[in-house]
Amino acid sequence: MEPIPKQMNAVVLEAYTGPESLCAARRPVPRPGPNQVLVKIAASPINPSDLAFINGHYGFKSPPPVVPGQEGSGTVVAVGKGALGRYFLGKRVACLKMTEGDGMWAEYALASAKGGVLPLRASVGMEEGAMSAINPMTASAFLEIARKGGHRAIVFTPAASSLGRMVNRLAEKQGVQVINVVRRAEQAELLRGQGATVTLNSTDDDFVQQLHDACREYDCRIAFDAVAGPLTQQLLEAMPDHSKVTVFGGLSRRPAQAGIDQLVFQDKAVDGFWLGPWLLKKNPLGILRTWRRTQALAPTLLDGTIRKRVPLEGAQGAVRDYMDRMTGGKFLIVPSL
Amino acid sequence: MEPIPKQMNAVVLEAYTGPESLCAARRPVPRPGPNQVLVKIAASPINPSDLAFINGHYGFKSPPPVVPGQEGSGTVVAVGKGALGRYFLGKRVACLKMTEGDGMWAEYALASAKGGVLPLRASVGMEEGAMSAINPMTASAFLEIARKGGHRAIVFTPAASSLGRMVNRLAEKQGVQVINVVRRAEQAELLRGQGATVTLNSTDDDFVQQLHDACREYDCRIAFDAVAGPLTQQLLEAMPDHSKVTVFGGLSRRPAQAGIDQLVFQDKAVDGFWLGPWLLKKNPLGILRTWRRTQALAPTLLDGTIRKRVPLEGAQGAVRDYMDRMTGGKFLIVPSL
Repeated sequence: MEPIPKQMNAVVLEAYTGPESLCAARRPVPRPGPNQVLVKIAASPINPSDLAFINGHYGFKSPPPVVPGQEGSGTVVAVGKGALGRYFLGKRVACLKMTEGDGMWAEYALASAKGGVLPLRASVGMEEGAMSAINPMTASAFLEIARKGGHRAIVFTPAASSLGRMVNRLAEKQGVQVINVVRRAEQAELLRGQGATVTLNSTDDDFVQQLHDACREYDCRIAFDAVAGPLTQQLLEAMPDHSKVTVFGGLSRRPAQAGIDQLVFQDKAVDGFWLGPWLLKKNPLGILRTWRRTQALAPTLLDGTIRKRVPLEGAQGAVRDYMDRMTGGKFLIVPSL
Repeated sequence: MEPIPKQMNAVVLEAYTGPESLCAARRPVPRPGPNQVLVKIAASPINPSDLAFINGHYGFKSPPPVVPGQEGSGTVVAVGKGALGRYFLGKRVACLKMTEGDGMWAEYALASAKGGVLPLRASVGMEEGAMSAINPMTASAFLEIARKGGHRAIVFTPAASSLGRMVNRLAEKQGVQVINVVRRAEQAELLRGQGATVTLNSTDDDFVQQLHDACREYDCRIAFDAVAGPLTQQLLEAMPDHSKVTVFGGLSRRPAQAGIDQLVFQDKAVDGFWLGPWLLKKNPLGILRTWRRTQALAPTLLDGTIRKRVPLEGAQGAVRDYMDRMTGGKFLIVPSL
């Protein structure tokens, strides 16, 4: 195994004020503590949750300067004390940041051997592996939440996102109907071309009526919404009594709205979803089981969703491009480029 | 018993467009069906839920013209088929409208013998009895919800309302801490004078910080909110992780707002409460048990909260006055005036 240097290249966020606070910097290579592993990073995507983190809207804020990047892939090159870590040494892995501290947009990163790192199957490449945690596990989580609540149909928005396409493929396998909500006609076309049977455009004048009808047709009483703002209220308005909207993002950059009639007289509710705590309610073995199951789907799920590969120095520009247009595939940070 | 006339005086709402659509009218005296009783109305209050009804924002809308009034008191003068009804004949009762149809702002009104009518104790007068259902049972419901959720403290707004004062007295009896939220300094003074230990003014610049501190001090994770709009978001912002706001009204006339961070990263939620369905989940005996328990508190609870007594012809003016200023005691409609 090649020697581990003392210093590395990394992307650093110097303040939680947006992409202008990102820069390339030299950082010490971290040393794994008990039940931690050190991963030489092969690839790490830019996810919507990274944008939230960079803009100071994420669930935790490590004191800056801090390395962003919540998931990635690579090879385990060193391990801390504990039997768990030793098992991973030398393996190709996917990794997921589960607590505060530095992330994966660097040449090296730490991951927890207790649920934060998963060996990659031989059939899964480093690029697919880098995106095998957050989106596939979030999609899995939504379908598990739906299944446990006895739902046979879900509303999903924004459906043209990478996550949306993944939710559609997974739902199809599980026999769950997705009512897709998008914001542009071409997004609806794209989804239909990929086999989505119900796709509505929230900018249509009669969107609420269309959604009302679709929810009645499929008895749909749960929505997963990463847009929020007035759209949350439209979803609640259209759905039948006793429905719920679970917010998992705020692309509209506005608070979620809920009409009084909907809350009081129609017994509707709004709550939220965050992958980290949802996973942490499972034990580490439970996390790995979910992750392994979703990874089995990764090659199919991720086919053709990479927009651009960029080196560490290109992270700032890629983040800006991604903020300008969030559909059309993922940006992937590749430290070796 | 005096004979029942064929026609009666009533207040009628001709369209769901507000108080301008209220008028006094002659209506046929309704005839009780199976398990219904006919009550000669002594008194009926104007409640916030009546304002919602008149403005078309209530949970059900009977086809107009319709008689408003969701609770009242009087004497049972006729009964329909069924043993339940016969039990009530000749008794002084409180009554509660539980379904669509005409309400209590009339000389006579129907009530369901299955949970919609309760004999008054000898110690409870007609005026107290007229207000012994909605507010006392709503206050009871909130404290039951809190108790079942393991809460020892609740946030309540608007706390200077009749319901707010009732919640305070009931909570004190049950050892539950109320964090009162009001909108004016004199309301805070009033509540403090009545023994409230924690009263915050939502117009203070540091209101959110004050509420944050109070919620930490009393480990308060549930709020009951009839204001909604941006206040809902402030409540969520101030409360600890895993808290919930239960909306039961919309005095701000704006949708409830919830911040994305609060929903997603802090596991907070917004839902709603409506007394009718909450009661209907209990069986009729369960309703009567709750009602009897709250009625026992009625004389103490209601002491000094009647602002004005008006005849049926005065209903329109009283509704307008109440809309202008909702604190300062209840308006009571008394058909015999």
